[in-house]
Amino acid sequence: MSDDLIHFEDIVVGTEKRFGHYEVTREEVIAYAQKFDPQPFHLDDEAAAQTHFGRLAASGLHTAAMMNRMMIDGDTGLTASLGGGGMDQLRFAHPVYPGDTLSIVKKVLGKRRSTSRPDMGIEQHEISVLNQDGVLVMRHIGIGFIRVRHPEAPVEE
Amino acid sequence: MSDDLIHFEDIVVGTEKRFGHYEVTREEVIAYAQKFDPQPFHLDDEAAAQTHFGRLAASGLHTAAMMNRMMIDGDTGLTASLGGGGMDQLRFAHPVYPGDTLSIVKKVLGKRRSTSRPDMGIEQHEISVLNQDGVLVMRHIGIGFIRVRHPEAPVEE
Repeated sequence: MSDDLIHFEDIVVGTEKRFGHYEVTREEVIAYAQKFDPQPFHLDDEAAAQTHFGRLAASGLHTAAMMNRMMIDGDTGLTASLGGGGMDQLRFAHPVYPGDTLSIVKKVLGKRRSTSRPDMGIEQHEISVLNQDGVLVMRHIGIGFIRVRHPEAPVEE
Repeated sequence: MSDDLIHFEDIVVGTEKRFGHYEVTREEVIAYAQKFDPQPFHLDDEAAAQTHFGRLAASGLHTAAMMNRMMIDGDTGLTASLGGGGMDQLRFAHPVYPGDTLSIVKKVLGKRRSTSRPDMGIEQHEISVLNQDGVLVMRHIGIGFIRVRHPEAPVEE
C-alpha cells in the first residue's frame, strides 16, 4: 500500500470531520427496495402514505449502503484500510426520502494496536449520517482495521 | 393489516427457526460493490488474491442486504411488521463468495409491549447467516416493531 495513505500512526483520537455528498434518487430507492427490501413503504407513495413514513422512504440498509459509499470515497479510500470489523448501535433515526442529500460526520473515538497482528491497528469511530437540513438520519459505532506504518515498533499496552 | 399475519401476541420467546435460500452470484457481488463499496477485493479476483479474502468476496453490507431479503420473504413479510429499530453487534464472521448459498437461523430473544404506543410490541432477535457448509458468515442482534392484535389489553409491567 502507498505510504501516502493514512496509516494507523496518523490517526488522532477525538478528530471530527464532515464529508460526503450523496443525492438520494427515487429510482435508486425503488431499485434497492425491489432487490433487497420489498416492503410497500419502500416501493410505493400511496402505501407509504398509510404509514409513519408519510411518503416513499429509503430502506434502512440502503441508507447504510449510501453511507458506506461516502465512507469509501471520503475516508476509507484514503486510508491503508484492512477492512471493517462490524457495526454497533446502528439506529435509523429519521426517514430518508428521495430528493434528500446526505453527508457524514465522523468522530474518532479510540485506537489501539492489535496484540495478535503487529501490522494492524484498530480504530473505533462514530458515524452520523445527516440530511440537507442537518437532521440525523442514521448513526452507528464502527470498527476499522488499518495498516501500521512501522509494525516493528513495540505495541504499547 | 390482515389478522392472518403474525402479531405480537403470537410470538414465543426462545423460538428458533431456520429459513431462507439466497444464491450469491458473481454478477450481483460486483454490481453491489461498484455502486456502494468499490474496494478492489469486492471487484476483482486478482486484487482479492492479495488479501485475506483470497478471491472475490461480497461487501459486508451486501451480505446484510441479502439477509434482509431473506427476512422479508421468510419472516417480516409474514408478520404485522411496523418496521425495524436497528442492529446491534453486527459482525462479519467469514467471507461470502460467489457460488455460496446463504440461509438464516433466527432466535427470538425477548419481547415486550411498548409503553408509549399500546398498539406496538418490540421483539428482540438474534439473526445468524450461514453458508452452505453451515459456517457462520454474519450475525447481529435486531429489534423489530410488531403490531399488537389487542391493543386494548393492559400492558403488563
